[in-house]
Amino acid sequence: MSEFDRVYNFSAGPSQMPLWVLQEAQKDMLNYHGTGMSVMEMSHRSKDFQAIIDRAEADLREVMGIPDNYKVLFIQGGGYMQFSMVPLNLLRKTKKADYIVSGGWAKKSAKEASKFGDIKVLASSEDKTFSYIPKVPRSEYTPDADYFYICHNNTLYGTQWKELPVPLDDIPLVVDMSSDILSTEIDVSKCGLIFAGAQKNLGPAGVTIAIVREDLIGFAGPKTPILLDYKTYADNGSMFNTPPTYAIYIAGLMFQWIKNVGGVKELQKINEKKAALLYDAIDASTLFTCPTAKEDRSNMNCLFVTGNADLDKKFIAEAKENGLVNVGGHRTVGGMRASLYNAMPYEGVEKLVDFLQKFDKANK
Amino acid sequence: MSEFDRVYNFSAGPSQMPLWVLQEAQKDMLNYHGTGMSVMEMSHRSKDFQAIIDRAEADLREVMGIPDNYKVLFIQGGGYMQFSMVPLNLLRKTKKADYIVSGGWAKKSAKEASKFGDIKVLASSEDKTFSYIPKVPRSEYTPDADYFYICHNNTLYGTQWKELPVPLDDIPLVVDMSSDILSTEIDVSKCGLIFAGAQKNLGPAGVTIAIVREDLIGFAGPKTPILLDYKTYADNGSMFNTPPTYAIYIAGLMFQWIKNVGGVKELQKINEKKAALLYDAIDASTLFTCPTAKEDRSNMNCLFVTGNADLDKKFIAEAKENGLVNVGGHRTVGGMRASLYNAMPYEGVEKLVDFLQKFDKANK
Repeated sequence: MSEFDRVYNFSAGPSQMPLWVLQEAQKDMLNYHGTGMSVMEMSHRSKDFQAIIDRAEADLREVMGIPDNYKVLFIQGGGYMQFSMVPLNLLRKTKKADYIVSGGWAKKSAKEASKFGDIKVLASSEDKTFSYIPKVPRSEYTPDADYFYICHNNTLYGTQWKELPVPLDDIPLVVDMSSDILSTEIDVSKCGLIFAGAQKNLGPAGVTIAIVREDLIGFAGPKTPILLDYKTYADNGSMFNTPPTYAIYIAGLMFQWIKNVGGVKELQKINEKKAALLYDAIDASTLFTCPTAKEDRSNMNCLFVTGNADLDKKFIAEAKENGLVNVGGHRTVGGMRASLYNAMPYEGVEKLVDFLQKFDKANK
Repeated sequence: MSEFDRVYNFSAGPSQMPLWVLQEAQKDMLNYHGTGMSVMEMSHRSKDFQAIIDRAEADLREVMGIPDNYKVLFIQGGGYMQFSMVPLNLLRKTKKADYIVSGGWAKKSAKEASKFGDIKVLASSEDKTFSYIPKVPRSEYTPDADYFYICHNNTLYGTQWKELPVPLDDIPLVVDMSSDILSTEIDVSKCGLIFAGAQKNLGPAGVTIAIVREDLIGFAGPKTPILLDYKTYADNGSMFNTPPTYAIYIAGLMFQWIKNVGGVKELQKINEKKAALLYDAIDASTLFTCPTAKEDRSNMNCLFVTGNADLDKKFIAEAKENGLVNVGGHRTVGGMRASLYNAMPYEGVEKLVDFLQKFDKANK
């Protein structure tokens, strides 16, 4: 099998990965750099693995511009585990927090946090199927909240914050970037905590990254399960217990690839071009519409519909025959969704647009 | 690079894996069975991945003989996360539990459980550096405990239970089999819950298996983090959120390999032969002694020492030069430790014994 048998995979996550990353992993599967073993077989206490995790962290710090007073933690459990860890660690004074519910994941996160404190949903866009990012005047923010929470990109409904909200005073901003981390430049110093499940832009499912400002670590209550305390990871270089070594290795390859292709600035340019190409084609078509507010459209997850469930199905099936797979919408939403993460090349989007235009002509 | 460049890796975990498993993973890295993508890139909601996890579960059920009234759950966080999940789920009536502390991991587990209930350490072998399995008369068991806990194999100190204890009445037995699952036959129906981090006999770090009797699921308290509730996994086929897909795929290959080599019965025979070969050589040597009680010696982790730290160091270094790597003891214990998990072939142990005998002759 070669690269030529590969499809363009528009899955929302786990999702397409750069061919270079997979080829490196393949090449070193039986014997990593002369160690005589696979990375999967390495003790996490070995010098070889320590070098892998150290390089992964250093490269991530470099490509994201993470300041020195932030810890980079490798955790298990996916973004969902952070829905519990954020309140368990950050509800440290008043036990209050503000959430902006711009989609299904933010809603689930607020619900989980409500187990542990006084969670206020400042606004929700559920009234219009989460098709826009709610705008909330700062006067409505809770003045003594322990943190302010947003989900930066809405994988299910295709919206994305274009500018970070600014919490009151020194209230830390918590940002779920599971589906757009490293796809767009972000000023880490404006956030108290950023987290991301890996399986979109970072690598394989099974590792989650939390970037936490140091002064926010150490406030988990005494009954917090030990692996849900950021301090456990911060004090032990993410190796209090065995970390998901192979997933960290692959994430490290992803960071190397990002450096090789010119960094996040360059990827952001390409991602903007990719998204514009697809949204423009949808807007210009006869059959397709995009259900999301124009100013909030995501560069990562592009939703479109025909308004006819049978026609949607036909589109998804014919796209697959053309090597353009997983363009079906989330099971709770329907329609189409094309995810354009970092690893989706421009040519993949060109092929999708070309197919969309042919389909539009043939079915109108 | 080929199989001929590979070393014999006696690491305690993550540890050596069968060459066949790694070769399969390597072959399918860019294109799994004609899907045009790596397993790492597959949506966990796809038919292709569903087939992978279904087969993994079915094969595990077959090789372990898991009865129908037990759920097989794929979880993240390693064995350590189970140290929290077990009490959070199983302390459901009196909030009492009995622990036998036969090693460092059981000790840590009891400590974590103490956050959530009234944990009684029935016995500990810490007085003699955990070199034996404590025997406790059943009259000392707590009659109204919610569960009874043991760690079946002591990775750090090289002991192993040869027969399961029998709790009073219908008190469920909880067994940590992180380092010896699938290496020896066990009667699952005698246990309420068995768990195991994957990185010894099951596959790569990043997935943990819990085998839970159905009537024990559903008792987690309302403030339990959602991903620490067994019910979350049981009700959703382990896919409430994105599971560690690639680690599950590799674990599935491990189960296939176990079937291919004749099942757990056959592996147990080989494991007993491997362990006997090494322990006999140690006992017959002039330089080396095994610090563990003879009747409790582990077939998985074999400890031995010379009593001279410099000589131990020399042994470890020279073994490495001979392609026998990671025979150093745990950083808290010192000396030597050779881990003989399923994937360590008999020839590897022969080579180690051969080297040990030469070293013994040369240094006495």
